[in-house]
Amino acid sequence: MEKGGEFMDMRKAVIEKITLFKESYKPEVFTPDEKSFEINRCIDHTNLKPTATTDEIKSLCNEALQYNFKGVCINPSYVPLASSLLRGSDTLTVTVVGFPLGVTSTESKLHEAEWAVENGAQEVDMVMHIGKLKEGDYEYVYNDIKAVVESAKVPVKVIIETCYLTDEEKIAACVLSKLAGARFVKTSTGFGTAGAKFEDVQLMKWAVDGEIEVKASGGIKTYEDAIKMISAGATRIGTSSGVAILARR
Amino acid sequence: MEKGGEFMDMRKAVIEKITLFKESYKPEVFTPDEKSFEINRCIDHTNLKPTATTDEIKSLCNEALQYNFKGVCINPSYVPLASSLLRGSDTLTVTVVGFPLGVTSTESKLHEAEWAVENGAQEVDMVMHIGKLKEGDYEYVYNDIKAVVESAKVPVKVIIETCYLTDEEKIAACVLSKLAGARFVKTSTGFGTAGAKFEDVQLMKWAVDGEIEVKASGGIKTYEDAIKMISAGATRIGTSSGVAILARR
Repeated sequence: MEKGGEFMDMRKAVIEKITLFKESYKPEVFTPDEKSFEINRCIDHTNLKPTATTDEIKSLCNEALQYNFKGVCINPSYVPLASSLLRGSDTLTVTVVGFPLGVTSTESKLHEAEWAVENGAQEVDMVMHIGKLKEGDYEYVYNDIKAVVESAKVPVKVIIETCYLTDEEKIAACVLSKLAGARFVKTSTGFGTAGAKFEDVQLMKWAVDGEIEVKASGGIKTYEDAIKMISAGATRIGTSSGVAILARR
Repeated sequence: MEKGGEFMDMRKAVIEKITLFKESYKPEVFTPDEKSFEINRCIDHTNLKPTATTDEIKSLCNEALQYNFKGVCINPSYVPLASSLLRGSDTLTVTVVGFPLGVTSTESKLHEAEWAVENGAQEVDMVMHIGKLKEGDYEYVYNDIKAVVESAKVPVKVIIETCYLTDEEKIAACVLSKLAGARFVKTSTGFGTAGAKFEDVQLMKWAVDGEIEVKASGGIKTYEDAIKMISAGATRIGTSSGVAILARR
């Protein structure tokens, strides 16, 4: 397919989904199967603070091993440390790219992703370019995501930062992420004006036709918060409160 | 000088400055020369919002040209646009690196800086790795800055994000920035828990022995705010309120 056609189809896909949303969207609730359900295997144990020290990242990794969390989510400079501590375990090294603003160049994002994967990252959570989405430059947004997907060669989650988006923009972000080859759409960086919302997770799950996964992140502090997000359709939870969630505190 | 020696000297320089601070620090006040003083030439007209669109960046650049601001400070993805609009003017294209958390890898920071300069950036405001400073890994902090200074080949400002630092940590950050070849130390990203403070600018000016400059940024909204920062020793002001400041609103 030639380039012009690809972008026309992409814009068409976004418009169709927004039309469908206006005409017939019905939010769905999912019930986790209590018997087989292991909440620890949904959690990316997270510390993305700019002040995080080596010791704090070591503790995070040790907790992740102890509770067999799905992943540890840390900033790129701590990827070599985390991946060495998690080697041989079932806990993934997850990192972030273009974080938390999403507005560095595509070239820098793909370089950042490549570096992280070379140094042990097994999943990459990249931030979408929010301004470009808002101005309707879908070609930019799509290419930005696709460049990271292709250079990372590991599952990519696209953080759409719901707090800054209208419902229509959330849908566009999800459709573009899916078309560009993302494995997940993710609600929030935790550095915006709000975190994950039940209704946003439902909408995102619907917007990607359940074909890719949804990660809920930002402000999830309790077991109840986590279950709420899962019943909205999330299959992954990003939180710094994983231990408290497991303890049902 | 061999490596070990270089780092020993660096640590010694930090300790000496902290000792001097405790023994005899006296904050100084500077009076701008009202006659020759042009406040517009101190201002980096700034829009670093993750939601900023192409049109908003164009407006920012047009205002900067109209008021002859010293620089325009934008995220890397807008460097090509800003530098094309500002070409031939006295307004610099300024961008940010590792922004706003400072915790991506050194390799990604230097790549991001190189890309930005190749695409027209004339100054680079990088964020220091705050966690590494806090744990006393001065070697990491120094190398991180030096790598960007050497790859960028344009003046580098180091954002130390004062809101997360003790006075001793601020001094260490300033000494390391100066030794690593930075042209400025800069107070804040505008995304932390607080922005520029009068006392911090004074302390930073003293900590670098006045040998490099200080940029005050974050929360500077009025003419009075700007003058206050300049009298504390700042020679550059990062603000999104440049037009209001000039109008003395």
